[in-house]
Amino acid sequence: MSGDEAETLARVEELEEAQCLELLGTRNVGRVAYSDPEGPVVIPVNYVLHEGMVLFRVQPRSRLADRLRDGAASFQVDHVDDATRTGWSVLVRGHAAHAERWEMPPAEDRPTPWAEGGRNFPVRLSPHSITGIRLVRP
Amino acid sequence: MSGDEAETLARVEELEEAQCLELLGTRNVGRVAYSDPEGPVVIPVNYVLHEGMVLFRVQPRSRLADRLRDGAASFQVDHVDDATRTGWSVLVRGHAAHAERWEMPPAEDRPTPWAEGGRNFPVRLSPHSITGIRLVRP
Repeated sequence: MSGDEAETLARVEELEEAQCLELLGTRNVGRVAYSDPEGPVVIPVNYVLHEGMVLFRVQPRSRLADRLRDGAASFQVDHVDDATRTGWSVLVRGHAAHAERWEMPPAEDRPTPWAEGGRNFPVRLSPHSITGIRLVRP
Repeated sequence: MSGDEAETLARVEELEEAQCLELLGTRNVGRVAYSDPEGPVVIPVNYVLHEGMVLFRVQPRSRLADRLRDGAASFQVDHVDDATRTGWSVLVRGHAAHAERWEMPPAEDRPTPWAEGGRNFPVRLSPHSITGIRLVRP
């Protein structure tokens, strides 16, 4: 590491779960990740937080729906500020499952995909752990 | 899906590999993903593209370094425009390994972490596949 680089490094702050949940509530798009035999796959989705779960919708009969019907999955949201070279990232690790009708919020609060493709298969990610970091400039 | 929702949906365009590589070159921060026994983990990193590989640096003797020393991994970069509700996403799937000195670009072109923590363990992700999509409003 050069001297110049050391001068400009940001401090890494671990976030409390409550802070992570607050930040999760500030975005429209996050990234769901699942693993297949070749490794992890990361896909952006529109989502909402509802009763402690991350809810989003995918295409029925898609590989994504298959993988998220019942299995380990993660959800990541971040914010990057190129100007100040800071940002934050929150990672939710948990279990994905098909969301039942009774688990969904009222219609107006449901996740609304931006993309076409009949994304009518609702998925809920139930967190096992919620962690996050923030980069802070002194 | 309500009529209102159908009206506002964006078209999904698949990107060619060359377009994906071009977009990969436009960002400073992407997300590396690896899998552990509990599922996928997604972590933002500063990166550069160099000779077809994604290069970044992590803390030596960290869990991240352990997992990325030799194993399946992915790298995801995206751009989200909340105002137009469009964006793009590129996913690189491949194999992560400790980058040897001779694989690194000249010093001025190396990945420079924004964060403290002595991130001096260089990792290269060699792509098996590079895919991407873009949301387009008619």
